Amino acid sequence: MEVSFKAISPSEFFYKNRDIAGFSSPARSLYMSIRELVENALDAAEVGRILPEVLVELAAEEEDKGVYRLRVVDNGIGVPGDKIPSAFATVLYGSKYGFKQSRGTFGLGGTMALLYGQITTNKPAKVSSSTDGKTMHVYELMIDVVENKPRIISSEKKPSPNGWRGTAVEFSLEADYTGSRPKILDYFKHTAIVNPHATLTFIDSRGRMYHYPPSVEKPPEPPTETLPHPVGVDVEMMTRLLSETSSKTLQSFMTSSFQKVGDKTAREVIETAGLKPAVSPKKLSHEQVTALVNSMKTYGKFRSPDPTPLSPVGKEFLEAGIRKIFNPDFLHVVQREPSSYGGHPFIVEAAVAYGGSIPLSETFSLYRFANKIPLLYDERADVAWKVAEEKVDWSNYKVPKPAPLAVFTSICSTKIPYKTVGKEAIADRPEIERELTMAIRECGRNLKLYLSRIEKREAAAKRLTLYSKYLPMIAEFSAKAADVKKPDVKPLLKKLGITQEDIKKAPGEGG
Amino acid sequence: MEVSFKAISPSEFFYKNRDIAGFSSPARSLYMSIRELVENALDAAEVGRILPEVLVELAAEEEDKGVYRLRVVDNGIGVPGDKIPSAFATVLYGSKYGFKQSRGTFGLGGTMALLYGQITTNKPAKVSSSTDGKTMHVYELMIDVVENKPRIISSEKKPSPNGWRGTAVEFSLEADYTGSRPKILDYFKHTAIVNPHATLTFIDSRGRMYHYPPSVEKPPEPPTETLPHPVGVDVEMMTRLLSETSSKTLQSFMTSSFQKVGDKTAREVIETAGLKPAVSPKKLSHEQVTALVNSMKTYGKFRSPDPTPLSPVGKEFLEAGIRKIFNPDFLHVVQREPSSYGGHPFIVEAAVAYGGSIPLSETFSLYRFANKIPLLYDERADVAWKVAEEKVDWSNYKVPKPAPLAVFTSICSTKIPYKTVGKEAIADRPEIERELTMAIRECGRNLKLYLSRIEKREAAAKRLTLYSKYLPMIAEFSAKAADVKKPDVKPLLKKLGITQEDIKKAPGEGG
Repeated sequence: MEVSFKAISPSEFFYKNRDIAGFSSPARSLYMSIRELVENALDAAEVGRILPEVLVELAAEEEDKGVYRLRVVDNGIGVPGDKIPSAFATVLYGSKYGFKQSRGTFGLGGTMALLYGQITTNKPAKVSSSTDGKTMHVYELMIDVVENKPRIISSEKKPSPNGWRGTAVEFSLEADYTGSRPKILDYFKHTAIVNPHATLTFIDSRGRMYHYPPSVEKPPEPPTETLPHPVGVDVEMMTRLLSETSSKTLQSFMTSSFQKVGDKTAREVIETAGLKPAVSPKKLSHEQVTALVNSMKTYGKFRSPDPTPLSPVGKEFLEAGIRKIFNPDFLHVVQREPSSYGGHPFIVEAAVAYGGSIPLSETFSLYRFANKIPLLYDERADVAWKVAEEKVDWSNYKVPKPAPLAVFTSICSTKIPYKTVGKEAIADRPEIERELTMAIRECGRNLKLYLSRIEKREAAAKRLTLYSKYLPMIAEFSAKAADVKKPDVKPLLKKLGITQEDIKKAPGEGG
Repeated sequence: MEVSFKAISPSEFFYKNRDIAGFSSPARSLYMSIRELVENALDAAEVGRILPEVLVELAAEEEDKGVYRLRVVDNGIGVPGDKIPSAFATVLYGSKYGFKQSRGTFGLGGTMALLYGQITTNKPAKVSSSTDGKTMHVYELMIDVVENKPRIISSEKKPSPNGWRGTAVEFSLEADYTGSRPKILDYFKHTAIVNPHATLTFIDSRGRMYHYPPSVEKPPEPPTETLPHPVGVDVEMMTRLLSETSSKTLQSFMTSSFQKVGDKTAREVIETAGLKPAVSPKKLSHEQVTALVNSMKTYGKFRSPDPTPLSPVGKEFLEAGIRKIFNPDFLHVVQREPSSYGGHPFIVEAAVAYGGSIPLSETFSLYRFANKIPLLYDERADVAWKVAEEKVDWSNYKVPKPAPLAVFTSICSTKIPYKTVGKEAIADRPEIERELTMAIRECGRNLKLYLSRIEKREAAAKRLTLYSKYLPMIAEFSAKAADVKKPDVKPLLKKLGITQEDIKKAPGEGG
């Protein structure tokens, strides 16, 4: 009955529970490693308004043991030399903790990849980075798991080759490339769809190159950092904001610390909390802080969060990407108005495509994106699956079974509510679920119009076949029987609304 | 282009990303809070071989704001006074980091519940505990999120009332009881099925009591802690074991640090690594450690992990629980032999039930358990769903659609490979998938026999209906026509193998 208690570091936690970060098998861990590093690379270019060029190289190191060497090079803003060890060899350390849209969210992914490499091969990772195109810092790093600290094996400062600015990460890991190849290739293909400004190059361990050139020459507006929105602020956050403010009065604290809070709103919230606008924000008691938060919670009249920091894929980009890959017969794309959940703005985009090279399915093929990254695993746990499967009755839209039907969903937000650290499935927040439902249903209604037209055209074509085939025969037969000259049926067909053009186009026997 | 870097504490990480621990909405957070505290309570009784008695009380505190007070009291071994603050107000601190089966796994759940309560209500939690039935320690605690440290609001030491030993946790939280009630009641019901030795009492905010008395008087053998199995040991773990050992030689290190490693195995592994058995384990170089781990990885002849620390539900318990709740017409329960994945032993149990009060479904109803806790969310992301849906073709077993079919799966292991920190879905490790497939298919084959018998019986009954209805009529008609006395058809029916008994039992018109 002796029970020992102890604390563990975050890196130890993720070392022991790497399944929850998606590093569960050699196949999936390779996919996760590539994904995490590519997403860091895209973010590093985006914040600097740089057209991203990302090179991913996978080389077999000890093929019999399944050990590979992975290298990811970008042309982003780089990481300052003194920050490199912590940024890459400390779990929960990063540059992504602000209120803005980014692909990475947990300050975890890059380090997890290196940690996975370390525990499977016991080799240090090599990180090179230059922030100015002149000096380059090169580190060999390992992670001290117990202490959650970097162990610097070597470090060097030298001129950056060819004026290169960016970051290069290189490490060995146990991997199953055969098992993960389809997902990895899908990952690059889908990432290219929603990042048409990026150049992506993947060279695999058999020397095959997969190259995605940019189809757009201008980088998108980078997402900006914003103040927190008052909805969704809890006591913990409020306490921090109060301790950090330089405002002299509660009134000015309210208008300067939150987005979309004007003088009138601030006064109303403060007074509902039983406080005075002129009081110093530093002097609130525990109970007063709680009262202020409760007053904000029940206020109900705040304006929606500011969507300007968001950077959605865009209807044209989504459409171009889908056409390029599936060449569908029908495609409808919807971008919803900005909405919000728990103080975080978000924008939903959705598309429904039909025909072309979309595979037949009893339900539909689903393609999900979040903050411009494709989500390829755990589809059935995602809110988009729930909506497309449960909230939308495809038979209402005249969709047959099976059908070449594909559904695309994209969500961008300052905070995507992932269900897992592996960033694969989005939680069913009611606000997001509603927007997705509206978007997909709108696409569905348009699909119905298209399918109805097809149906009508097919019915007309069938009728046409009958008329155009039998009418001349009947005419001929009748003429012979009556021993008169065969009449011209064209005027008759014309009366029925059938042109010569139609007859030529009509399929089937009469075609 | 100024980018700021910073580190965050584990509690800050989970504060910002509570979705990944399952605390996503007021409904689900209440469910998670109850669940985490009940599971801690059951574990605290199990390690002390105590028949657990767990009382859960939910009271409305400020009904209009959706604020509730939750209290969970157990009769477990208690937490020592000096450990209470860290155990309940530090994230990633706990007693569950060893190699043994337990319900909790992340050292996170209880603290997450209190953290959620704190950020939604700003009130301290109250924790009382006694380890000896004499003295009781009572703390009021809050969590310092930035530092991941307890803030002790008050502490007191007093005599334990009525010699009570155990732990009581009480805190306020924002919750949606209406929304989570069905899941919470299911949770208690299903927990009772697989913990028939426990007394569970839930008193809800409307004063309704749900009481599950024990149906077994003996506590199960508590799971024991074991040495790590050599398969699945990575460089990180090896380095730690080497630094902690008191063995003088590598040979004795190997046999004393791992389970199922005898002298011969140890020597073979050491020699394959190019090392000497007599070398001091403290003097291995980095490369030698890697070589040793690689040798263990490729050895391939280790015996399976020791399953004795595992505590499965048991066939009788599972059967009794299922019968009690569903009273099915058919039930087959399978317990597989112990198996292992990545060095962790596990045992799969499965059951298939048909008829009774099982609801009709186009597929099946799935009930999942892991280390004696029910899993109620994210079913479709679970390996059990994958197996029952994709690997088993129910039409092979003559299951009609819809059918009153229920599938039960239970896995116990020293480490359940959960996909999420919220412990709701199990990853599809190939070894677990295989065992589940075998178990469910075995149940399926038995179900087929049952359904075939039913089918035969129904065909017979139909035939019977015809014979027993028409034969007497034909006899009577023929008798009248021939003007003879109506013959006795009983001998004829008997010849056909139909007894009077059968005729009485036969359904339909002839019944």
